[in-house]
Amino acid sequence: MKKDNQGAITALDDVESLVRHLAMDVQRGSAGLAYASCEQKNEALRAGAARLREQKATILQANVQDVSAARAEPTMTKALLDRLSMDEARLEAMAAGIETIMALPDPVGRVLEAWTTEGNGLHIQRVAVPLGVIGVIYESRPNVTADAAALCLKSGNGCLLRSGSESLGTSQVIVRCLQEGLQSAGLEPACVRLIPVKDRKAVGVMLSLSQFIDIIVPRGGESLIRRVEKESRIPVIRHLQGLCHTYIHSLADGDKVRRVAFNAKMRRPGICGATETILIDRDVVATLLPPLLEALLQKGCEVRGDADVMALDKRVTSASSDDWATEYLDAIVSIRTVAGIEEAIEHIARYGSKHTEAIITEDKTAAGLFMARVDAAIVMHNTSTQFADGGEFGMGAEIGISTNKLHARGPVGAQQLTSYKYCVVSDGSVRP
Amino acid sequence: MKKDNQGAITALDDVESLVRHLAMDVQRGSAGLAYASCEQKNEALRAGAARLREQKATILQANVQDVSAARAEPTMTKALLDRLSMDEARLEAMAAGIETIMALPDPVGRVLEAWTTEGNGLHIQRVAVPLGVIGVIYESRPNVTADAAALCLKSGNGCLLRSGSESLGTSQVIVRCLQEGLQSAGLEPACVRLIPVKDRKAVGVMLSLSQFIDIIVPRGGESLIRRVEKESRIPVIRHLQGLCHTYIHSLADGDKVRRVAFNAKMRRPGICGATETILIDRDVVATLLPPLLEALLQKGCEVRGDADVMALDKRVTSASSDDWATEYLDAIVSIRTVAGIEEAIEHIARYGSKHTEAIITEDKTAAGLFMARVDAAIVMHNTSTQFADGGEFGMGAEIGISTNKLHARGPVGAQQLTSYKYCVVSDGSVRP
Repeated sequence: MKKDNQGAITALDDVESLVRHLAMDVQRGSAGLAYASCEQKNEALRAGAARLREQKATILQANVQDVSAARAEPTMTKALLDRLSMDEARLEAMAAGIETIMALPDPVGRVLEAWTTEGNGLHIQRVAVPLGVIGVIYESRPNVTADAAALCLKSGNGCLLRSGSESLGTSQVIVRCLQEGLQSAGLEPACVRLIPVKDRKAVGVMLSLSQFIDIIVPRGGESLIRRVEKESRIPVIRHLQGLCHTYIHSLADGDKVRRVAFNAKMRRPGICGATETILIDRDVVATLLPPLLEALLQKGCEVRGDADVMALDKRVTSASSDDWATEYLDAIVSIRTVAGIEEAIEHIARYGSKHTEAIITEDKTAAGLFMARVDAAIVMHNTSTQFADGGEFGMGAEIGISTNKLHARGPVGAQQLTSYKYCVVSDGSVRP
Repeated sequence: MKKDNQGAITALDDVESLVRHLAMDVQRGSAGLAYASCEQKNEALRAGAARLREQKATILQANVQDVSAARAEPTMTKALLDRLSMDEARLEAMAAGIETIMALPDPVGRVLEAWTTEGNGLHIQRVAVPLGVIGVIYESRPNVTADAAALCLKSGNGCLLRSGSESLGTSQVIVRCLQEGLQSAGLEPACVRLIPVKDRKAVGVMLSLSQFIDIIVPRGGESLIRRVEKESRIPVIRHLQGLCHTYIHSLADGDKVRRVAFNAKMRRPGICGATETILIDRDVVATLLPPLLEALLQKGCEVRGDADVMALDKRVTSASSDDWATEYLDAIVSIRTVAGIEEAIEHIARYGSKHTEAIITEDKTAAGLFMARVDAAIVMHNTSTQFADGGEFGMGAEIGISTNKLHARGPVGAQQLTSYKYCVVSDGSVRP
């Protein structure tokens, strides 16, 4: 540690040593969690959820302070304030979310494969094990604190949390409740630690601690993720963008086009699984597109199209080539006509973010071709891209969606927070 | 590209643009390989192996030139020359190795899981897909060229190879044979490309090309791996060290101790799965260790031990604390006595490289405890650590052994060179 002339630790070093100390503490504290029984982990989650409900007043009070401090900041938007704000219903949803994760089967210890080799007498099992310590870096929503900690705990991993600075006060109370849950189940409270300072340097320190942290999960906007990717010396599970497409094939059913493509864009335009670009076969633009276009425009969606689409409605503005590469996260959609499925697949290969891609068609051959050829974490047939979600997939909860190709791809739930090891048993086999 | 005053590309830029061009070429060339049929991929492998046999004279001639050039280098050792040298038997083994990989089931397209969600009517399949383009960086053994290319091809991945400079001439002929195999099966020869220059800057360029290369697999000594880890902007599948332990528990069978621990160290002391440190319970040092010690010493193994071990035989030298942290890769072993299984597990947690760790015991409870608690890619019971190998595990072949926790851990065969995607089908489901 560097010290100033008076021997006091300078501010930077203080954050460095603080974060390092916390990460070491989580590694040490969670060593036993890796092989804790499912019952013990569930008891910690049950008690943690109960404690959150008991501490309702304290949590809401801390949140009121966070919200009022945030309101004073010039960069604060209404949307950010809404994400930050807690109320009784959100608190109950948070506690219930932990109970949902509690009810999942234990992801640790699953025998993923088992076989006996010929000749050398090895009995081999591939068994799921925790990853170790997970560093989670996120923004203002306090419920991420509970979700991330509960998923890590269920999967036997320690976690070091770095919450958004606006929600730090609320997150501290939530973490304390979960730590009390751990303690009452006979587990180390240090399995979960929250970085208690707002200094942004703490993120950089976390990303350097590869000896204590095994995986970094960043949750937030693209700039956060890019910073983490650039600086991290630790493997990162993340998605950068959700530039998702819905492709309307010439043999699509008109009713599905209108319902599914509309939902894919407009249900919640701001989520990563929202469709940003609709591709449609040129020979059905005049027949299949108008009802969808009308529904989108009526709902207030801005539509940017190529010449064929503009010809259908005066309200459609001209799409520039930038539009094909833009994740709007808003009520804006770009629509492009293509000559057929090959051109649609090429467009997606060029502009897609490998998150979620859908085809609407009644033709099984076309659907099969699309799903085999398109390289994305999730490919869909006659299904809204808004379903790209661990909860909707039946995983109970997710810590995020990965567009990595290594390890977890798609929704990242408790199972995806595990690695595996090979357990080999023989009766004294030696290798010839 | 930077150019000099005469407009000529400077040497560095030349390597840069060359490597970039090759990587782009593999990405483009292997796009169709991702969904090629198993039959087509197998035909390419079959024809490639046949071509290697046909081109025997050319390959051996190129190898003679590589070996004689290498001999002139001052840093060349006998061991390196041996690794570099080909003969008819090694060539036949290389071709047969490709046929072994050919005979494996197709790792691509496997349905890893399938389920239907309740409520929202989604039929979900998790299906294995290739990773994309794999960059393989290796040292002097020419057979790695064939093994790595064949594993990538089988798993639907393109590969860009960077061979050791000593074996470049031999590797070029081998790659040409495999490319002819691809061509005769109607696949793009550009699925496999070898960097045709010896300039070490080529490695740095490879590691920067994250838009064209999805995974880097370095095979070689620790300094190569550390360089790759430090410089790479691309995820790396690797192992750094194999600092493996064999722990002799107080309830071990004496015969297994002598046979298994001896084999674990001495079968081939230079491989990553070789045992480097033997741990033994203090209460059985006098009974179980002497026969093993005698066998090791008689075979010429240098033994470094703590005071309890030194007391058994004058030939045992004193182990320093550095010995516990050293991967000898040689006929040297360190032996330490421990109070019991807890101390053994602690020693391994502190010094082990998370590669392969073994316990010798007749007590199933102790074995279960050891295997649950030790964090390593492979944990073994009454089994020689020298079995840490994809071929011995029944995977047909391996591109290496991973001590990563993300994605592939342990032996990396064709299956481990795949990712997956979710294929979601519904009859027009929209998310509420």
